[in-house]
Order: sequence, then C-alpha cells, then structure tokens
Amino acid sequence: MRLLIKNGLVVNADGQAKQDLLIEGGRVKRLAPRIEVEPTCEIIDAEGCYVMPGGVDVHTHFNIDTGLARSCDDFFTGTRAAACGGTTTIVDHMGFGPSGCRLRHQLEAYQGYAAYKAVIDYSFHGVIQHINAAILDEIPMMVEAGISSFKLYLTYQYKLNDDEVLQALHHLHRAHALATVHPENDAAIKQKRAEFITAGKTAPRYHALSRPVECEAEAIARMINLAQLAGNAPLYIVHLSNGLGLDYLRLARARHQPVWVETCPQYLLLDDRCYERDDALKFILSPPLRNASNNDALWCGIADGGIDVVATDHCTFSMAQRQQISGGDFSRCPNGLPGVENRLLLMFSNGVMTGRITPERFVALTSTNPAKLFGMWPQKGLLAPESDADVVIIDPKRTTTIRHEMLHDNADYSPWEGFICQGAIRQTLSRGRVIYHNGKFTGSAGQGRFIRRQPFSAKHAPATGTYFNERNQ
Amino acid sequence: MRLLIKNGLVVNADGQAKQDLLIEGGRVKRLAPRIEVEPTCEIIDAEGCYVMPGGVDVHTHFNIDTGLARSCDDFFTGTRAAACGGTTTIVDHMGFGPSGCRLRHQLEAYQGYAAYKAVIDYSFHGVIQHINAAILDEIPMMVEAGISSFKLYLTYQYKLNDDEVLQALHHLHRAHALATVHPENDAAIKQKRAEFITAGKTAPRYHALSRPVECEAEAIARMINLAQLAGNAPLYIVHLSNGLGLDYLRLARARHQPVWVETCPQYLLLDDRCYERDDALKFILSPPLRNASNNDALWCGIADGGIDVVATDHCTFSMAQRQQISGGDFSRCPNGLPGVENRLLLMFSNGVMTGRITPERFVALTSTNPAKLFGMWPQKGLLAPESDADVVIIDPKRTTTIRHEMLHDNADYSPWEGFICQGAIRQTLSRGRVIYHNGKFTGSAGQGRFIRRQPFSAKHAPATGTYFNERNQ
Amino acid sequence: MRLLIKNGLVVNADGQAKQDLLIEGGRVKRLAPRIEVEPTCEIIDAEGCYVMPGGVDVHTHFNIDTGLARSCDDFFTGTRAAACGGTTTIVDHMGFGPSGCRLRHQLEAYQGYAAYKAVIDYSFHGVIQHINAAILDEIPMMVEAGISSFKLYLTYQYKLNDDEVLQALHHLHRAHALATVHPENDAAIKQKRAEFITAGKTAPRYHALSRPVECEAEAIARMINLAQLAGNAPLYIVHLSNGLGLDYLRLARARHQPVWVETCPQYLLLDDRCYERDDALKFILSPPLRNASNNDALWCGIADGGIDVVATDHCTFSMAQRQQISGGDFSRCPNGLPGVENRLLLMFSNGVMTGRITPERFVALTSTNPAKLFGMWPQKGLLAPESDADVVIIDPKRTTTIRHEMLHDNADYSPWEGFICQGAIRQTLSRGRVIYHNGKFTGSAGQGRFIRRQPFSAKHAPATGTYFNERNQ
Amino acid sequence: MRLLIKNGLVVNADGQAKQDLLIEGGRVKRLAPRIEVEPTCEIIDAEGCYVMPGGVDVHTHFNIDTGLARSCDDFFTGTRAAACGGTTTIVDHMGFGPSGCRLRHQLEAYQGYAAYKAVIDYSFHGVIQHINAAILDEIPMMVEAGISSFKLYLTYQYKLNDDEVLQALHHLHRAHALATVHPENDAAIKQKRAEFITAGKTAPRYHALSRPVECEAEAIARMINLAQLAGNAPLYIVHLSNGLGLDYLRLARARHQPVWVETCPQYLLLDDRCYERDDALKFILSPPLRNASNNDALWCGIADGGIDVVATDHCTFSMAQRQQISGGDFSRCPNGLPGVENRLLLMFSNGVMTGRITPERFVALTSTNPAKLFGMWPQKGLLAPESDADVVIIDPKRTTTIRHEMLHDNADYSPWEGFICQGAIRQTLSRGRVIYHNGKFTGSAGQGRFIRRQPFSAKHAPATGTYFNERNQ
Repeated sequence: MRLLIKNGLVVNADGQAKQDLLIEGGRVKRLAPRIEVEPTCEIIDAEGCYVMPGGVDVHTHFNIDTGLARSCDDFFTGTRAAACGGTTTIVDHMGFGPSGCRLRHQLEAYQGYAAYKAVIDYSFHGVIQHINAAILDEIPMMVEAGISSFKLYLTYQYKLNDDEVLQALHHLHRAHALATVHPENDAAIKQKRAEFITAGKTAPRYHALSRPVECEAEAIARMINLAQLAGNAPLYIVHLSNGLGLDYLRLARARHQPVWVETCPQYLLLDDRCYERDDALKFILSPPLRNASNNDALWCGIADGGIDVVATDHCTFSMAQRQQISGGDFSRCPNGLPGVENRLLLMFSNGVMTGRITPERFVALTSTNPAKLFGMWPQKGLLAPESDADVVIIDPKRTTTIRHEMLHDNADYSPWEGFICQGAIRQTLSRGRVIYHNGKFTGSAGQGRFIRRQPFSAKHAPATGTYFNERNQ
Repeated sequence: MRLLIKNGLVVNADGQAKQDLLIEGGRVKRLAPRIEVEPTCEIIDAEGCYVMPGGVDVHTHFNIDTGLARSCDDFFTGTRAAACGGTTTIVDHMGFGPSGCRLRHQLEAYQGYAAYKAVIDYSFHGVIQHINAAILDEIPMMVEAGISSFKLYLTYQYKLNDDEVLQALHHLHRAHALATVHPENDAAIKQKRAEFITAGKTAPRYHALSRPVECEAEAIARMINLAQLAGNAPLYIVHLSNGLGLDYLRLARARHQPVWVETCPQYLLLDDRCYERDDALKFILSPPLRNASNNDALWCGIADGGIDVVATDHCTFSMAQRQQISGGDFSRCPNGLPGVENRLLLMFSNGVMTGRITPERFVALTSTNPAKLFGMWPQKGLLAPESDADVVIIDPKRTTTIRHEMLHDNADYSPWEGFICQGAIRQTLSRGRVIYHNGKFTGSAGQGRFIRRQPFSAKHAPATGTYFNERNQ
Repeated sequence: MRLLIKNGLVVNADGQAKQDLLIEGGRVKRLAPRIEVEPTCEIIDAEGCYVMPGGVDVHTHFNIDTGLARSCDDFFTGTRAAACGGTTTIVDHMGFGPSGCRLRHQLEAYQGYAAYKAVIDYSFHGVIQHINAAILDEIPMMVEAGISSFKLYLTYQYKLNDDEVLQALHHLHRAHALATVHPENDAAIKQKRAEFITAGKTAPRYHALSRPVECEAEAIARMINLAQLAGNAPLYIVHLSNGLGLDYLRLARARHQPVWVETCPQYLLLDDRCYERDDALKFILSPPLRNASNNDALWCGIADGGIDVVATDHCTFSMAQRQQISGGDFSRCPNGLPGVENRLLLMFSNGVMTGRITPERFVALTSTNPAKLFGMWPQKGLLAPESDADVVIIDPKRTTTIRHEMLHDNADYSPWEGFICQGAIRQTLSRGRVIYHNGKFTGSAGQGRFIRRQPFSAKHAPATGTYFNERNQ
Repeated sequence: MRLLIKNGLVVNADGQAKQDLLIEGGRVKRLAPRIEVEPTCEIIDAEGCYVMPGGVDVHTHFNIDTGLARSCDDFFTGTRAAACGGTTTIVDHMGFGPSGCRLRHQLEAYQGYAAYKAVIDYSFHGVIQHINAAILDEIPMMVEAGISSFKLYLTYQYKLNDDEVLQALHHLHRAHALATVHPENDAAIKQKRAEFITAGKTAPRYHALSRPVECEAEAIARMINLAQLAGNAPLYIVHLSNGLGLDYLRLARARHQPVWVETCPQYLLLDDRCYERDDALKFILSPPLRNASNNDALWCGIADGGIDVVATDHCTFSMAQRQQISGGDFSRCPNGLPGVENRLLLMFSNGVMTGRITPERFVALTSTNPAKLFGMWPQKGLLAPESDADVVIIDPKRTTTIRHEMLHDNADYSPWEGFICQGAIRQTLSRGRVIYHNGKFTGSAGQGRFIRRQPFSAKHAPATGTYFNERNQ
C-alpha cells in the first residue's frame, strides 16, 4: 500500500519546500524533491497546491447533551464534516456526567459514543466537574489512559471556585496534564441575565449584552494568576473572543508564563451585528460575538504569535431545535455553532491569501501547535518520516462559496452561508487513505482510532511569544 | 435666508442628540429639540439620519504638477467631488515651486488655481522645499497670511536632511505653525529602486517592494525625536500606512509628546494583493499599500485613539496617463489615488456600522480633529451656534455601491470600484447652501472661500491619547 | 491675623513661580511676585525653599483595633506626627465595626475618636463590611454627611465576594462615592498560610511568601473588570506594591477607564531583603514588601503618571506588641507600618532630588491628586486665593537623617531608621498657623476640623494617563 | 596540573548546583557533587561561595588614541584590572586608523599593542571607518582571521550616513559578522554643541544637555530599521543609556528581529546629578549620564530580559589629563570612564543581592551572552567539560568598599569611589591559573592569548526576549 503525492508545495510549521511525499503503511515514508516509484503505485499530482499536515481541531462537542438538548452531530456526522474540511484529528470536550460521577465514567461513555462511528482519529479532553479527594486521585490514571488534558469551567452549573481551581491546577500540573479553561465570570453573568429576564429583554441581542467582554477578560486574568500561584501550572485558554483578554495573556507571556490560547474563526470573522439579523438565534454561543474592534485585535494575535491555536468549538443545535426550545428567548436557547468543516478554508483564505500570515504559521495554528500542546506530536501535526500520513491538499487558485447544502454535518444551517473563500480543499487523507476528494466524502465510519495522548510536556509545547511574524523580516 | 434641518440625530465629536438645527446667514443659528419656524422657511426633514459637521479633508493635491505629469483634477472637479461625498472644506498641499523660489511664490500660484473654481471652502499647506535664512524669515508672514502649516518631505528631490529639519521645526514652532511630514527613508528607497531597475524588475509589485514598511517607520521615529530635540515642536505625520510606525507614535504619545497622525481609507481597506491584479498600475502610490496585518493595526488606532485624522491624499492620475507615461514600469508611473469623494462613506460604513467606532469618533476623525489641528475650529468641524453651516446628512439605512461612473472627479477609474457601503450621503450643505442632494451636484464654481487659518495652538489640538473607546465603557 | 511667606518658590501641581504668599483668616489671600505688608504683619522668609500645599495623606489607620491589637497611635499622636512631616490633612480608613452594624455606627465612633484630638484637618473613608438592603440604602446619607468614599476588602474576615462587590460598586457609583479597594485573593492566601503553618514555617519571611505578587495582581484585574461591569464605576486601588498589578491598571487606563491608584513609600524604597534581617518582624504588613524589580516598576509609574497618589497606610504596632502577641510567628503578628511623618521627605529626596519627578509632580502625588479624588479640592491640595492656608516649606539644601527618637508618633521604631534624605521640612502651617517649625511641634490637640467632603466627581479627578513626564519634554 | 574547586555553588546561565569542579590542562575536566582527587592535587575550598564563568567584557578601549589624548590604560594595566575584578576575557574596540587605511592595518596595530602585555585572553572588534569596495571586500578575510564583529559610528568624524550603513550591514551580514553600533544623531549634537559653545556654556553639565536622550533613541530606531532593510541583518547596540531607546528595541524584538543590546553599570547606577558635583569632569562620557528615571527603565530591562549584555566601555583618561586638556570645557574634554575592574561586583551587589536578578541571569549578562554573541562560546562563558577554566569565585557574605587606591588600572580616580558592595571577588582563574586572590594580582603580562572568534551565528545567540524573569514564576 504505497501512495505518492507529487509536485506539491509541502508545508510544515517550520518551513516549506517543493517536494514529493511518499506514503507507506499509513505513514509518511519519505520526502524528497523528486521520488520515483514503481508503475503500480498510486499517484496524486498536487502541482500548484499546498500539501499540509491534516487539520487538528482540539475543540469539538459531538453528541453532547447540555441538559437543554442533545446536539445534532454524533461522532459519525461530526467527523465526516471534519474530514471534508481537511481536518484529520479531533479532540472532543466531554460533557458533564451525572452529579458526583468519577472521571472514568465519562471516558467510558465517550469511548462508546465514538467507537464504530469516527471517520478520523480522535481523543477526548476530560472535565473536572467537582473536586474531592477521589477525583484528584484519579487524574494520574486518566493521564496514563491517554487523557492528558482536562477542562475547568468558571461558569455554568459545574463551575469551580478559586479554592477548587487551585487544587485542580496543582494536581493536574503534578500529573503532567494540561488545564483547559472556559473563562467567564459567573456572578456578573447571573446578575445581568436576571436583570434582562426580569425586564422581558430576551431577544438574542441580550445574550451578548448579558456576558460583556469584561466577564471573559476578568476570568482570564484570574486563571493566569491562579496558575502562577499553583506553582506555575501550564494553562490553556479556550475560545478567546476579545482583545482585552489577549492583552492580559500577552503580559503573562512577556513574563514567560506557560500559558497558551485558542480562538475560533467566528471570533475573527463574525461580529455582533449578527444579533441584529432576523436569524440572530443562529448566533447564540458563549462567549458571544463581539464588535469588529475585537476581530482586529485577535487578527493581530493570529499574525504576531499572541494566539497559538485556531479550533472551532463545533457544537450543533439546529435552528429547528433553537426555535422550538427557546421560543426566541436567548436565555432558553442552547449555545453553540457548527463549523468543524469550515475552519481550514476560512483561515487559509482570510489568513494566508490576505498576507496576514504565512502558510507555515497557518499550519502551526491549525495543526502543529494543537498536536504539540495535547500530546500528539510528532504523530500528528507534522509531515515527516514516521508521522501519520494525515494530509490535506489545498488548491489556492480555486474559489469556494460556502453553502450549507454542500456541507457534511447534521445542522440545518451554516453561520458561514455565502462566504466566499479563496482556495479549495482538494483532498484529505487519513493515515494514507483518501477520505475526501473534490466535494465527495470517500471515508467510512469506524475508520478513526482513539489516540492515547502523551502527558503534557512544556518542552514540546510551542514557545510562548516566539512565533515569527515572518512578513516583517 | 433661513433653513431648518428637522428630526435628525445631530452628532458632534463630543456627543449626540436628536435635535433640530436652524441655519441663518450661512451659519448655525440654533440647536434645540424642537424648533418652530415661519411657514416660508425652507425645511429638510432628516428623520432617521445623522446630521454631522461637513467633512474636512486636510490632504488633497489638486492641479498638482509633479514633473512627471499634471494631475487630472483641478480645484473645480476636485472640490465638486469632495462636495458630493460630504466634504465641505479641503486643505490642499501645495506642490514644489521653481528651484529657489520664495514661500509666497507658491501661495500666489495656488490662490490663482483655486479662485473662481472652488466649490467649497479651502486653504493650503505651505511646503518647505529648501532651507535658507530668507525662507525661514518668511514663515511668520505666511502664518500671518493664514498658512499655519507646512509640509516637509524626507524623500523625493526636495527632501530635507536632519540638520535642515531641525532648523525648519524650530522656526515653525516659534511661528506657531504645524509641521506636517511625509516620512520615508530616502537612502533605502534609492538603493532598492536601483536594484530593481537594474534587474529589470519594474512591474507594479516592485513599487511596494522598493519602499518597505521600515522605510516609513524609520522616518517616523526620526521625526518624533527631531521634533523633541527642536524644543518639543508639534508634529503631524501624514498618510500613515503601517503598524510599526503607529507603535512608535504610541510611545511618543505615552510620553505626552505633541504629535498627531493621519491615515487614509486606502491604508485601512486595501492591501498589497492589489499589486497582483491586472490593473495594478491603478494602485501606485507612496507609501504603497501594505499587507492586511497593517490594516488590522491601523483599525486598532482608529478605534482606540492612536490615530487622529482620516484624510485622502487625493491625487488623480488617470489610467490613461499612468499607462502612457510609465509603459507599465512602476518607477516611471506618477503616484497617487483619487478618493476625495469616498472618504466619509467608507469610514462610516466600515467604522460606525461595524461597531469599530462611535458616530462621535467618526466626526472627530473626519472633521473636528483636522479642523482643530489646522486652525479652523470652531468655524469648521462643529455644529454649534456661530459655526459655519457646513453639514453632511447621512442616511444609515441605505446602501451605496461605488461605481466610478457615478463619481464627480476627473479620473477614469476608482480604486473603490464595486465596494458596497452601508449608508448613503443624502445632502451636503456649504455655509447653508445645499450643494449636493441625493446623487446630484447642486453647487457652483467659485462659491468656495479661502480660509485664513489661525496659528497652531496646542490648546485647541485634540489631546494625544485621550479619545474614548466608548464601546469599552 | 495676617502672615506673609516671602521669597519662596511656590509650587502647585500645575506650575511653579517665585512668589510671595499672603495669608489672612486661615486662607490664602494673594500670590504675587512681591507683596508689601504692614510692619506688624508676621513674615516667614522662605528664600531658597519650596513653598507647597501641605501634604494630604489619604491612607492612615489611627486608633484601629484589628482584633489582634489596638494600634499605638491615636488621633493626637498620629496627626502630630503627620504635622511634623508636612502633612496637613489626613483621611483615615475606619476599622470594622461590630458584626451587622450600620454605616453610621462607625462614623459616630470615629467622630468621637478624632474630636478634641486631631491637630490637623481630617476625614474618614467608610467601609462596606457586609451587604444588605439597609446598608446599601444608607450610602447616600453617608455621602451627604461628607463621607464620599468607602473601602471594600477582598480578603480578611469581612471580604466581599464578586456578587457583593458588583452591588456595592453599583450603589456607590449612583451615590457619587468612590470605591477604594484592598485587593488580595483570599483563597490563595488561605491555602498558602495553611501550608506554611502546618509545616511550621512561621518565620517572618513566610509572611511574604504566603501572599505573592499574583494574589494582589489577580484581585486588581478582577476589580477593574467588575467596576466596568458595574456601569463603569470609578475605582481607587490602595497600596499598590507590584509591577504586574500596575500593568493591568495601565491597560485599563489606556481604555480610559476611570481607575486610579495609590502606592506608599515602603513599596518604592524597601524590599523583601528586610525579611532576612534580625528585626524582620518590623516589616510585617500587607501586601508585603516585594523584590527590588517591583520598586523599579513602581518608580516608572511614579515618573510617567501611571500612579496617582502616594499615601502611607500608617498603622502602628510597636515592636513590643509585635513580639509579645506573635512570639515571632508571622501569622499571629499584627500588620502595618508607621510612616505618616516621613512620606513627604522620602518622596522629595528620592523623587525630586534624583530627577525622577518634577516638584509639580511631587505636589500632585502627595497633595493635589488625593485632594481631588476625595472631594477636598480646591480647599486642600492647592495654594491659590480662597484655598486653606495649609502649607509645607521644604528646604532642599539641608539634609535629614531619620532617627526614630526624633519622630512624633507613638511607635517604638521606624522602618526608615538611618535613611538619609536630601531636604528638610522647615515649617508646616495648618489654616495659617505654624504647627511645626524646624524640629519642633507647635500645634495643639483639637485644632483640626472634620472636613465634610464633596461627592466624587470625575470632572475634578486627575485625568487618567495624562500626567506629563516633564523631563522628557 | 590539576586543580579542584570544592564545595562551591556552581552557576551557569542555565542553572546552578552545589558541585565540585575539577580543572586539568587549563580546561574544565569534570563537574560532580563530590570529586575525590589525589593528595597532591591543589584544592580551593569555595564553601559558601559562588563559582561562576569568568567575566567577559566586550566593550573596552585600551591604549586608544582619540586624537585629543591617548588613554592611560594599555593592555597590561587594563587586563590586570579586569582580572582583579573577575573578568577573564575582553574584546577591545579598535580605534580609528589613519584616514583611508585598510581593515587589516588596525588589526595588525592592535595585535602589536596586546601581545606580551595581556594578562587574560582577548580579541578585538573591527571598525568600519569608511566605505569603499576594497574595505567591503576585506570583511570576509577579517572574519576568517577571527574578527567577526565590527563597529559602526553614527557620530564623530568617521560617522557613516544611511547609504553607507546599508552597504556595511549588507556585507557584514553576508560575511557572518555582527554589526555593533554607537548610536547618536550627529546633526542634532552638532547644533546643540555649537549653540552652547557660542553662548559660553562649556561647564560639564552642558555635555549632557548637548546630547539629550532623543539623540540616542533616534539613532537606535534608525539602525533597527536599516538592519531590517538590509535583509534582516543582525545588530548589536552598545552602551544603551535610556529607556526610550530600550522601548524601540523591545518593539523590534517583539517582531523577532535579531537585535541585541548592551548597557554599562554607569547607566544603571549613576545619574546626571554627577554633573552638579565639583569633580563633574570625571563623568564626561558619551552617551552622557541620564536622570534616575532612566536608571529605573534600564533595570527593568536587566530584570526582564530586554537587555542582553552588561559591559563597561572602559576608557581611561585621568583627571589630570581631563583638566589639562579641557581647562574645564566639556567640548574639549576626552570622553570615557574607567571601570573594567568593578563591573562584576557592582552587578552582583545591585542585581543579585537585591533580588532584581537571579545568579543565573547575572552570569548570562556578564559572561554567557557576550561569549555567545561574539563567537567565543562554549570556550568562554560556560563552566562545562572542555570549556576554558576561566572562573570567578564570589563570596556573597563579605562587603567591599570601592576605593581607587585599591584598584589595578592606571587611572587617578574611580567614578565608583565609596560605593559599598555586598559581596567580594575572592579568586579569579584564567585557563586554570589563579591570577587574582583576595586583593592580590598573581598573574603576569603576556599570559593572555588572542581568541580567533567564530563567525556570528544567530543559532548560538541568546534568544531575543526569552529570558526568564524567574522570580515571577
């Protein structure tokens, strides 16, 4: 089983070269300017295209039940959409389990959800939904089982207080696990929501007004300092949506604190004018969309290295669900956006093709950095001998207009409807097999494997603040 | 001669209110929530519209002869286009006079160009094209004559060296005149141009590559420090195009140095991908267009107060001229873009309607700040009793698609062709007379008056670094 | 009753001039280059000296009972020491009252402590030690009574949680009162203290290690964002000790948030090497002393306008008390430092005489800014006609060595023992009466009056970020 | 020839450990917690002391003739003083040669000056005093001969203009040589000097006033941008004296530009009040001493990694010379300060012992970083097997008071007279031989060897902006 990708421009996070890439046994065998193969070897001609490590999306919520509703995408439709968008690995955030449950409970549940369904390789982030001695003791065993990152929430019903956060960070650090955090100030949100609901202000625009920028920024500054106080524990902030929070993170990184941050395409390319649209319910997510000045600030971080990862927070609730459950009331509407299929192309078009970032930095943001931070590198996030042959081939000369009817998830709308992207996903390969080709899904359920992730290691993590803004050099 | 504008939302740089505005004798007579007038009084109903001080564009080049060519717009077509875009005052940068000429020479020439032609009120910036005792002595007389700002060039044939700049700044400061500067490092540009020309690299993309960001940033830092060394002389940087230069200016303002800065819509909304287009010659201007990360950085400055003024640097050379004179060679192509007609709407649509800036800040950037810096406030840049009744009425609910054939300048193309703007210019009034109404120019040549500008005063200048980013409050 | 101060260099926050200053009826009557008076008029010759508004120290704790101990200084010895150091007004932070008590309870108690004792004019900050409807309703009445600022604690037994802080800020803002905050993260301190105590690590050095920089910085960022969320409520941070917290405040001020900050001489001039001394118990205070790099960062803020006020947090517990109560165990030692007498001279010597700040900025930091922020300007903090004749005369040519035996408080040590200052306090005048003269206290108990302070007004508050670093101009 | 240093705390730039260190044949043989040796082996007991790589001072001017005068220290007295202060390697900046001379001319002259005289190992920086094809062609040969760094001056008689700087940077970069730059704006200094001299203002204080902070800051910003324009050429700024210049460098490093910066103890610990002293002539150097706020800003850079190297710019002109040549007129006084003997102890006392920096960072600043930047690492700047056994042993518990009579240079004064340092230099070893021991010089002339330095390599250079401020972690 050999496959040769010829004539492409192979891009990794640390460089690019026109090279052929030979795949054997699902792994990269060899890279060289010109590789000759036996006549029977399958060949893909990638002339004029970028050949890049498949995308790694470390923030999805498939099959999640938030209490209000179960999301529309399971591990089959979710990973199928990912595959069709060039993403070859996902790390899903497990949902909350029954009150008082042990960590393994959710891991077992999720193993069941994903087995026989996943089209691409996958893993899960654990979640610390309460703190007691038993839970803290269980962390090292979870890391041993390949779950080397855990989510902490500062809002919602399972939020942790400062004392609990310090304990969790301390134990995670000791167990070589990375803490990932949803940062929003719970008390402020509760007060604002109560005010709006009391005043009958339940239209979608009040969703955004009930969780202002400062709710998120406060919680980010708090986590930065608590992580430092917990013995300089490593920290990963999810779905950053605003510039003030980024400023706090920049200060921490200027002091060389080990903290990393993720944003999502919706916080770069959509803004709060969406809440004035007739279909505003489509854009209920947390943190909410901000105004365009925050887009600008986040693009600066994308360009200058202030931001490390672009993920999606894909979490599908159909418009039908949203409308039916909420009746148009933001406070009763399930939160989340679909988007796992659009991440790579949105970033390629608006990042690389505008000159904001280099192709190398694109790979770092969408594949290499998340693979490194979450214990999957160099198996994932790299095209080099012995790495998994997870590949995306992007044609920069074609144009793609996003239409929901062409997407492969189970939503009934796309927040990106009508967006025109410069570039097109031509092929996706998962461990050497073509699972997407020019608009057609060619993979199959159950093909994806669970990745037992390595413990977190700062040595492999992207250096804080050292990404080149190559265009300035 | 009375005119009442009713029901509009009147916006000044320091606040907004739903008010009626009564005009008498070409001046604002009164503002009040509800004004009753005699039945014969002319009335404009501005319900649902913004009523703002007419635009003040302090960077145009009408009728200029750069040696290579004379620009297509004279003071009639240029000010007509301005009027149709909501701009009611322009301050034109005089071109270089004959070698060795006195300051008055150019002033007299320009008075001749503008008289009987200008449709709106106008003034000129002087230019210091060489330094000697006679020139330095003439400065106070020019200020007395109403010319309280002068341009210095750091590149092109009349560039000044450090020693000359120090002398000029010192004398301008003493005479209460503001130095405005075109900052680019001449030596570096010369070397790069020579390299490219020698190598036969004369396509338009080499124009941008021959004057990189650092050429401009270096010259900005130099001017900041020379101004400080010349006794903390006030300084105004024209047409800023990049983020690094803005960072230098931010440092200076953090130290409370009296330095202000202007950018133009092209540096906010266009980028260097224009040089890959077939019609790239249309985008030859200096400084050149930069990549999109610079757009992002400049928008941050627009939003947070780091930038004070948006002007146009309107300087029209038709595609016919460009093609004929240069034969496609960037080094022989005349520099400049038309755009005096599009400034307000581009900023309104991409600034106010996206939530990046408030309506107040829009007025500050396009009208109040330039009026204050250049000695015309409160006559211009303000809607208050006794101010000139220069007004623009903008309808935020309409949409405008920019097409060159609908513009009123004398160019044969628009760099903004096809841009869709949220909002429309409904009316423009110059000293109480409607000179533009829904697509139709209703003014006449010679209507505009020369404005004898006041000496520069730091007291009236916008405070450095103190503009609110109101959305964050 | 007239008094003339002749030949001095009169300095206010906004300028200086060699002027005579005539006092009549306890107020400034006139300032002029040369004033002639009747032969009987008392005259002070201030040739070669600075004549400045008397110091305003807005952070003292006289007569406080912290539960562990009652402080050694009452309103007589405390204000006498202040007077002898050139300070003519203090605003004391009331201590906690009995659990559940109303706001007026403490006001009445403190009025009793101060009447018949205070040597100089005085007021009090209120304290919000719990939140309920009755307390919130009482705020406007307290403001009416002249108490227009209130302290919130984020640590210690009466700490407020986020929800309570939001309510307090909201009500204080509405009542035109300024919230002053002691910012330290309670949960982290509790964990660290418990760890150290369990491990038997109770030497003074563990005091500092139990409340690291990040405890304070976290709480500052939290307060900044909660204040913004509470409708952009004005905020005043007390006793800043570290550079990271200052960075957070700088970000807030760059966004024009109305937030101000105070530091104290001990955080500028002492560092954590004090905890290695044999007499380390003398330096137990909260926040603790930091390392010298934080001194540097705070001096930057003093110089560039990032910090607004220098106060003392004077709170005297004698070494005898410290030793006896704690037995050397940091966790049982009462917190606080004496210092009300040394503030002006320490800042004059280390600020003005080193070129770090101008005399004007010295006045702003020690007198004008606190007077403005706390509703006492222009009565206090200014030498101009109609202002109170509170004056300090400083001789820059003399040298003062600080020795505890020469100080006028009731402590048994000084943290500044042996410090050599360039300059000397020559005279202090309170409402026109000389209360200190060359080493001798000449005032009397009960002379000081309660100041009914004005409500907080942002208009009178020092502009955030706009202080000149005049040496750079 | 074996020597064992026992029981010391061995510190390198990347860590510390209590270890024994065995020396054999002039090199480090082994490091281990406990090393046993034959009874005859010489042993130094370093219990309670720091054992560190000998200092590397990359900025001295021995034996220099500036035209006005020849400096008092030759390569014997200069290196003897260095040795007695713990410095074991110097890189001297060659002076200007005869007009029009080739690069080799000065190298040969300096080889002559140093041979038979130097006590410690040494090298030279070249100097580009004019630009022509022959000079540019000679650069690679000089690099081959071990001279891999060259000085450019922007002021003084051999200053280069922008065009020449670009050419020099381009050729140095191609030849793997590092450009070191003396940055001051020549035109501004000339104007100010002329003004002062004309006005008869020639007292020492006018020296500082004739070259304000902005002269230096401007030239730093210029060099940063020219280096970027010359193909991202590496750049090294010498003797930084002010905070604004540091801010420009920080911006460049935030963009990952390869630029490094050196400061000197005098800019950290002395300030412009020296120019008010009776012996102000002692402090004439360029750039001049600044006010104390610049000390603070530079200490911030020392602590947080913004500054890479501390050198001395040692250049001795005796007070006798200064007085005689200048007659007290700053404009005729030779420039420079002695200090090669005091660098390590001043930084140890004021850096390490105050908590501003760690011992590791001290080693980085004074030894490892300069060794890496100038092609001498790992031979110098490191204590590891195979490195040269250049060692300094510092006793932190002793106190040293600096008195000129105890120093070993040839000056007749010390700018550090009376400074009290916590710590003392106990021994210095050069390639395994003890050349200084408790106050006594034990080396001999001619013992030092010329170091043929490696070409510049960014790979070995200290990472820009990545030094830990470990105290914050």
